[in-house]
Amino acid sequence: MDTPRIVEIIGTLPLFSHLEREQVERLARSASVETIPAGGLYFSEQASAQGLHLLIAGRVKLFKMSEEGREQTIFIFDPGEPFCLCSVFSDGQLPANMAALESSTVLVIPPVELERLVAEDPGMLLQILRVMSRRLKEAMDMIDALSLRQLPSRLAAYFLSAAAGGAVTLSITHRELAKIIGATPEALSRALRKMSEAGLVDVQGKDVKVLDRSGLEQCRASGLS
Amino acid sequence: MDTPRIVEIIGTLPLFSHLEREQVERLARSASVETIPAGGLYFSEQASAQGLHLLIAGRVKLFKMSEEGREQTIFIFDPGEPFCLCSVFSDGQLPANMAALESSTVLVIPPVELERLVAEDPGMLLQILRVMSRRLKEAMDMIDALSLRQLPSRLAAYFLSAAAGGAVTLSITHRELAKIIGATPEALSRALRKMSEAGLVDVQGKDVKVLDRSGLEQCRASGLS
Repeated sequence: MDTPRIVEIIGTLPLFSHLEREQVERLARSASVETIPAGGLYFSEQASAQGLHLLIAGRVKLFKMSEEGREQTIFIFDPGEPFCLCSVFSDGQLPANMAALESSTVLVIPPVELERLVAEDPGMLLQILRVMSRRLKEAMDMIDALSLRQLPSRLAAYFLSAAAGGAVTLSITHRELAKIIGATPEALSRALRKMSEAGLVDVQGKDVKVLDRSGLEQCRASGLS
Repeated sequence: MDTPRIVEIIGTLPLFSHLEREQVERLARSASVETIPAGGLYFSEQASAQGLHLLIAGRVKLFKMSEEGREQTIFIFDPGEPFCLCSVFSDGQLPANMAALESSTVLVIPPVELERLVAEDPGMLLQILRVMSRRLKEAMDMIDALSLRQLPSRLAAYFLSAAAGGAVTLSITHRELAKIIGATPEALSRALRKMSEAGLVDVQGKDVKVLDRSGLEQCRASGLS
């Protein structure tokens, strides 16, 4: 990717929206661009990560894996989002694995350039703190869901947060959804069928239509009755 | 609590260790001190929190609660630790409940003073980012444990991380430990008994002695055989 194209991309990233033209050009010259094929592993847990990573195309997931190979997805990142933040700002070690759900492109700002940027513009730390705060809250909600809620309640919470208007088009397969919800694919299928039978949602492959929003809210609070 | 005493306490807090005497005195004049009785609720989920909160004595827990009143502890904070960070740096809403495990004292720096401090010394944001990074990693480990590990493996991980040397003196009751591990008190008792029988630990009330460290490591990786 050539520098003018990177300059253009940096201009679209919320984290850098307030930078001067000169800073953007400097960033573009120092940055590298990495690509990950669909399904490819980008980082393993305990690998070290340095510098600022931003997804500029595609979609990646951060996930934990058990000894037997079972997966639990923690976050899915869309273009524009920075990641590896909690490694970079602590001991440099990645807390989980990262893989691409589709063919993805990552912009990497080297550590020395990140330090310079933050020194010039400490407000960026505040922006990063906001991102991290949101993620920590999401992680706490996931702990709540895994520990205190049954599967239908977790699914209802997921659909309600993903449903803008009433229709949810899952941008992931049911198999990937199971890894977010913390269920086996079979248990997910059963729960989806029950929720369809209860008239809460209509499921047609990746298209999930919310039929009864208040019923779904009740299901989130206390499960399927 | 009088200002000279608050000045003294601020001097012991890692987050403020690099401040000038003058800044510490200003902080002490603006800060307020709040006390929470043992077992008392300090904040409910969705309450709003402003300013910087630091525990200066006692011990508090951050926890989620289900509709039926079941609890999952997310973090336990010891003296010196800041909290409510992810509310303060996002939408101001608390992601969970907070209660005191023992009689506790909290120092609260008002928002206007926090802003001034951060403007004078942006390096403090970096320190806060480090704390937040560590907590996000801990939250991810908890997601991993709840989703991908059985109870004995979660307990083994807890004992290994808490054991300095070989003896773990739990500073909490088994009832509170159950809320951290994500288990009912009965299931916790059964798991502790099994681990004792397997010769991994010796449990005498709050005193837990690690008898077989490599066995415990194996149990963390793949459960009790």
